Amino acid sequence: MRAQIRVQSRQRECLEDITGQVREAVRRSGIAEGLCHLYVPHTTAGIVINENADPDVPRDILERLRALVPPDASYRHYEGNADAHIKASLVGQWALVPVAAGELALGRWQGIFLAEFDGPRERTVVVTVLPSAAWPQTGGEGP
Amino acid sequence: MRAQIRVQSRQRECLEDITGQVREAVRRSGIAEGLCHLYVPHTTAGIVINENADPDVPRDILERLRALVPPDASYRHYEGNADAHIKASLVGQWALVPVAAGELALGRWQGIFLAEFDGPRERTVVVTVLPSAAWPQTGGEGP
Amino acid sequence: MRAQIRVQSRQRECLEDITGQVREAVRRSGIAEGLCHLYVPHTTAGIVINENADPDVPRDILERLRALVPPDASYRHYEGNADAHIKASLVGQWALVPVAAGELALGRWQGIFLAEFDGPRERTVVVTVLPSAAWPQTGGEGP
Repeated sequence: MRAQIRVQSRQRECLEDITGQVREAVRRSGIAEGLCHLYVPHTTAGIVINENADPDVPRDILERLRALVPPDASYRHYEGNADAHIKASLVGQWALVPVAAGELALGRWQGIFLAEFDGPRERTVVVTVLPSAAWPQTGGEGP
Repeated sequence: MRAQIRVQSRQRECLEDITGQVREAVRRSGIAEGLCHLYVPHTTAGIVINENADPDVPRDILERLRALVPPDASYRHYEGNADAHIKASLVGQWALVPVAAGELALGRWQGIFLAEFDGPRERTVVVTVLPSAAWPQTGGEGP
Repeated sequence: MRAQIRVQSRQRECLEDITGQVREAVRRSGIAEGLCHLYVPHTTAGIVINENADPDVPRDILERLRALVPPDASYRHYEGNADAHIKASLVGQWALVPVAAGELALGRWQGIFLAEFDGPRERTVVVTVLPSAAWPQTGGEGP
């Protein structure tokens, strides 16, 4: 029910597509109906769900975030990566996606990205799949 | 436990109040205690929870987002709606709200909005209600 | 399984560290494996998860948000706190964090903050802990 995805990010700022790894974790869970929770236990990376058909969409997202939170603006944090901390809190470090018929139920154009803002480095995404087995209507708890 | 809300957005950018439809879905679920999950399976729309008493609050939110992510800035995505993709990832496409005493337990001033950034069009919100029936303390699992 | 945390914010804009209170709520729940849901039932405050080791990180987050959404820009909302509403929707009012081995499973550098944008005032955070007891693989439901 709980799995860890490892992601090696390739640049300081990039959106790494982890859709396939999340789909695989959902399948391995054996859960047919429920919710898939994704959690990034880092403070300079987050989760983005957006279009993964045109690679220009991730690029546009990163470029706009860089315009809004420039790496070289005046910050106090001594490590020089304050912009990465701020970007992580703008996009968020968790997501919760429906699971239906044993599959991750993303929208047609949606992909899941680890949003790296201070790479390259190895990141972890914690995946938890909650079944709907306890839902009254599913009636699966038996006698 | 799972329902779909259909929303017809009326402008390119607007916050459509879906609070009533979400409340109704929670009631129909028959679940007394738990959490209500909302998911937007689109890449140019999101979910916002904010004040729905003064219609100027949704307008201010949209106007500020437009100032931060202008439709006519320089983007690469060929479809001309890059700003909508970026705004969706800033507000997020999912929410999770407490359910208590059979009702959606929003704060006094909170309403739920489908945040449209590339309308007008028909949108879907997937509603999943998770019961607390399995929680040990509720004592509902019987001897 | 459900608790309320009270937070007295000390300034108009501040990040109040509530990590200890959330950890305590998770321990009191007695739940070993699951997810901890945090919900802010307000419209001018939110939840931020970020570094709580260097207090400059929360300061940088607040300052950048103020640069992006200035309190004195032109807004329509008559109460004079439109910026606070907008900031709340940028950071979000809910979070969902793994619980493992009876403890809140934050990342090493992560802390949880009530993000106050229109204080000082007393705020509430609703904490719901969902157990994994119902998950098939945990096998805890017995014959």
